[in-house]
Amino acid sequence: MSEPIKLVAFCGSLRKASFNRLALNAFTQRLPQGTELSTIEIDWPLYNADIQAKGFPAPIGTAQQAVLAADGVVFASPEYNYSVASPLKNAIDWLSRFTPQPFAGKPMATFGASGGVLGTARAQYHLRQVMVFLDGRFVNKPEVMIGQAPTRFSAEGALTDEAAGKLLADLGAALVLACRKAKAAAAVT
Amino acid sequence: MSEPIKLVAFCGSLRKASFNRLALNAFTQRLPQGTELSTIEIDWPLYNADIQAKGFPAPIGTAQQAVLAADGVVFASPEYNYSVASPLKNAIDWLSRFTPQPFAGKPMATFGASGGVLGTARAQYHLRQVMVFLDGRFVNKPEVMIGQAPTRFSAEGALTDEAAGKLLADLGAALVLACRKAKAAAAVT
Amino acid sequence: MSEPIKLVAFCGSLRKASFNRLALNAFTQRLPQGTELSTIEIDWPLYNADIQAKGFPAPIGTAQQAVLAADGVVFASPEYNYSVASPLKNAIDWLSRFTPQPFAGKPMATFGASGGVLGTARAQYHLRQVMVFLDGRFVNKPEVMIGQAPTRFSAEGALTDEAAGKLLADLGAALVLACRKAKAAAAVT
Amino acid sequence: MSEPIKLVAFCGSLRKASFNRLALNAFTQRLPQGTELSTIEIDWPLYNADIQAKGFPAPIGTAQQAVLAADGVVFASPEYNYSVASPLKNAIDWLSRFTPQPFAGKPMATFGASGGVLGTARAQYHLRQVMVFLDGRFVNKPEVMIGQAPTRFSAEGALTDEAAGKLLADLGAALVLACRKAKAAAAVT
Repeated sequence: MSEPIKLVAFCGSLRKASFNRLALNAFTQRLPQGTELSTIEIDWPLYNADIQAKGFPAPIGTAQQAVLAADGVVFASPEYNYSVASPLKNAIDWLSRFTPQPFAGKPMATFGASGGVLGTARAQYHLRQVMVFLDGRFVNKPEVMIGQAPTRFSAEGALTDEAAGKLLADLGAALVLACRKAKAAAAVT
Repeated sequence: MSEPIKLVAFCGSLRKASFNRLALNAFTQRLPQGTELSTIEIDWPLYNADIQAKGFPAPIGTAQQAVLAADGVVFASPEYNYSVASPLKNAIDWLSRFTPQPFAGKPMATFGASGGVLGTARAQYHLRQVMVFLDGRFVNKPEVMIGQAPTRFSAEGALTDEAAGKLLADLGAALVLACRKAKAAAAVT
Repeated sequence: MSEPIKLVAFCGSLRKASFNRLALNAFTQRLPQGTELSTIEIDWPLYNADIQAKGFPAPIGTAQQAVLAADGVVFASPEYNYSVASPLKNAIDWLSRFTPQPFAGKPMATFGASGGVLGTARAQYHLRQVMVFLDGRFVNKPEVMIGQAPTRFSAEGALTDEAAGKLLADLGAALVLACRKAKAAAAVT
Repeated sequence: MSEPIKLVAFCGSLRKASFNRLALNAFTQRLPQGTELSTIEIDWPLYNADIQAKGFPAPIGTAQQAVLAADGVVFASPEYNYSVASPLKNAIDWLSRFTPQPFAGKPMATFGASGGVLGTARAQYHLRQVMVFLDGRFVNKPEVMIGQAPTRFSAEGALTDEAAGKLLADLGAALVLACRKAKAAAAVT
């Protein structure tokens, strides 16, 4: 039997009632058996190299270790002003400053929820470009853009849209497969 | 004689010795006569809609008023991880939540400095896309991407690269012209 | 009374029954009174600098003159593979090689129709980046992305979606206003 | 001993003396031993669904088969007007219409040469977005952007810039490694 796949997840919105957090919950519930996911909270200071020079704040170092230890990374990515939400970009900017840089070589996946029709598409493409630099390995398919989010969750926060649920499940499966493939290919150098 | 043009500027890096701040100084020194520029400091909390619900932090409200009162807006834009620096994105995310949204209809310009060859080009294109949503009116030309920044400033922080200085001067002139044109065209509705 | 505004339009798809051509028809029908629009056909050879060296094909030279003579430019922009449709990109690549380069300084607008949900959004953002280089002046608002296009036109090719029709009318008005503003501001130098 | 890796390559410029073709030559010369590369010529008609409806032109069908049979794909990508060169986009638009779509799942790499400083960076990011849709698997590193191309090749067309040559060699090695990893991981489903 294959060993469990360990994922870490970031939710790009700090708002307690965020639709992206609800979508992350829905994603987590639909992961293949044998998958573990833990969420990294990112209410950190704004990135400032002068702070870094005095030492990374402790929770950021903990987050680096968690990403390094993970098989794959998940980003619940809101869209703010047609690009990556600042809390998520800030977390990435901090983590990118470590050696080893923890995203390098990691399989990863993103999805997002928004009130508009495009469902965070623009933010996701910017995030993909960010990860070219950091050598993250996004799965291409499926893309999950949950538009008109308020109509797709119940008052209790459960995802009620079946099509979106299926896409999240497929994305989880694709990410886990990418993690297993990366393990299988690790010996090829 | 024409009345003065008032600009507000954002420096996307919080680092005291930031090359982008030096570039902003160089830009400011080369502005056409009759131009005023004031810088808005952006060491703000990370954007969080739950904080906003309790009221915008005071400096952010002051910043909104300053942008609203300005004829044009300037962004000294670092590039972090192939996209907009998180402190700058965070400032924009906060300001975008006001009514009136202060960037709407404003002529604006961006430039940036980085250690690499591309000189923040990737961040600038993302910033341009952000401003499609917020209806900012970027001048297209000249684009100013100051690559290999450590070689282009003196130990005292003065820009020593003549070509970059000329580009910054041209960009300032282009922005001021765009502001004057916007004023002249304001009566056309 | 103000003089008429002259627009030229490109339809990025060569397909006779293209939804983007239907959308262009719908856009044209909703233009403000006193606006003239002529369409430039772009079934040209693939761009090749070796062909250019022997002389621009005649229809391309005619197109350059038409763009130069226009007050504004319209792009009905399909999305092929998440970017600008090759026939439209090809037309722009050819026209960009002229001196004077005809798009420089022109107010312009884009919209598009596609079968998917995003309605050519990705292509439109790439097109906007293209025009940073060519100094085209896109209006920011409204953005018109007609998704699920087959459900929005009648069998005879008429736009039946009222919301999309209103957006196209608003975009035409915004473009004509931008053209009038550009004329009013032309004396400011 | 491992079996040879078969690559197909596209040169995005049709110009005979194209710097991108020279860069492709330089890339080919620096491939790891045991790698075969064949170039697909793309002087095809402009994409038109009405032509497709009558049957794909023969060379395009041949190209589809060649891509399907390859282990990996190479794009020598010029930048035209801040985006993908129209001949290359056109080739991709044609090939994307086949079932099976030949780029799906293929490891791929891109590089480019231009006269400017950015060395086709903008085109490469657009190309990366195109391949999200087509499920191409670009290696992230190294990125190879050969700026100021006329200074980097001899009169006979040989690459004379050692740093660029090293980057091309590293990119070839990275692509071949990605192909070998994909083979090793193919059994994981």
